[in-house]
Amino acid sequence: MADDKKTIIVFSGDLDKAMAAMIIARGAAAMGNEVTLFFTFWGLNLLRKPESVPIQKGFLEAMFGWMMPRGARKAALSKMHMGGMGTAMMQHVMKTKNVPTLEEMIREAQEFGVTFIACTMSMDVMGIKPEELIDGVEFGGVATYLGSADEANVNLFI
Amino acid sequence: MADDKKTIIVFSGDLDKAMAAMIIARGAAAMGNEVTLFFTFWGLNLLRKPESVPIQKGFLEAMFGWMMPRGARKAALSKMHMGGMGTAMMQHVMKTKNVPTLEEMIREAQEFGVTFIACTMSMDVMGIKPEELIDGVEFGGVATYLGSADEANVNLFI
Amino acid sequence: MADDKKTIIVFSGDLDKAMAAMIIARGAAAMGNEVTLFFTFWGLNLLRKPESVPIQKGFLEAMFGWMMPRGARKAALSKMHMGGMGTAMMQHVMKTKNVPTLEEMIREAQEFGVTFIACTMSMDVMGIKPEELIDGVEFGGVATYLGSADEANVNLFI
Repeated sequence: MADDKKTIIVFSGDLDKAMAAMIIARGAAAMGNEVTLFFTFWGLNLLRKPESVPIQKGFLEAMFGWMMPRGARKAALSKMHMGGMGTAMMQHVMKTKNVPTLEEMIREAQEFGVTFIACTMSMDVMGIKPEELIDGVEFGGVATYLGSADEANVNLFI
Repeated sequence: MADDKKTIIVFSGDLDKAMAAMIIARGAAAMGNEVTLFFTFWGLNLLRKPESVPIQKGFLEAMFGWMMPRGARKAALSKMHMGGMGTAMMQHVMKTKNVPTLEEMIREAQEFGVTFIACTMSMDVMGIKPEELIDGVEFGGVATYLGSADEANVNLFI
Repeated sequence: MADDKKTIIVFSGDLDKAMAAMIIARGAAAMGNEVTLFFTFWGLNLLRKPESVPIQKGFLEAMFGWMMPRGARKAALSKMHMGGMGTAMMQHVMKTKNVPTLEEMIREAQEFGVTFIACTMSMDVMGIKPEELIDGVEFGGVATYLGSADEANVNLFI
């Protein structure tokens, strides 16, 4: 175990929770930590490219892909989304306060050297293909996660 | 603290979150870890037997019991449940991909030696009796949890 | 790292999750731990004074303040809130079982010496001012959190 390693399982795809994950990850990396983020379930949607990627999919996989938000820009608040109004309000306020958008936070985390791992089992179940995800993402499963968590001194599930 | 102990507080009774907890628990146990799961609040519902157990209860306890999902088979997605359609879709996809059901994951975790502890305070508040829970579950409170967490190197709240 | 330090990020403002956080915090403090709670996003609402505090705010800040629950007494269940009926039922049952209210749990945690830190970045985004929060709360950011988490052996995100 090392005092300078941190892991976060990013299970949620909600805007607010994803921001919390990114703020912690970015902060920890800036302070010299080796940070690993595991994106699983709804969290995977945060890594999707905003544009549609033409891929042959089965009917249900296509349905899932169509129903779930494509990329960080589409993430919604877990509370007070209110048909988009609450989320838009929050994004507007963040802009006026010079808080970076979630998309920018993700880019900054990558620039700070945070490791992004997409959960291959979730990708399989949700029918998400590697080419649909943003660049710089690695792939792994629960063993990869546990290997990192065993070496870290802070492990969160968000 | 030992590198081979893990705890998870299973607070959520949602299908997706419960699956995440079970996948981590099963994986960690398979890799030689001593894993302890604390089921509290909505997570307790995952441990309920699927059949109704005849027990004398007060009105509110009976109400709670009737309103909350009875067992892992009834767990619903935290997102995209869509009146049951999204959850059914997910379960169908998991079946076609040979992913075990949540019920099977729970059984497998028990077979791998994962310790299941039901939170007695939550049971009291929600009016859930020991005989309503599946076999092999132990009982404990916050002190039990903290005792395990102090010895573990990965502690998650799901 | 010390075996007697714990941190919890209280991200959620839901009654059930806040209770879980307070039960763990109070229990850990009673067992001799140094416990630090970081209140961020919706969790901040738990620290708001129940009465309105007259402060000059911008339009959106005032809107946020008006839309979000003011204080622990207003916290609602994350599930089965049912327009307030489920939450009221739960509060009624807790009372009959002599479980303290969330407000009392928060007070007790403070009396047990649990450190409460309000996330300044969230306060800024949500337009919450220090004078709107209950007494005894400290202020800090992600670096404050990471400093505490690095010294703790149990770190949870709720």
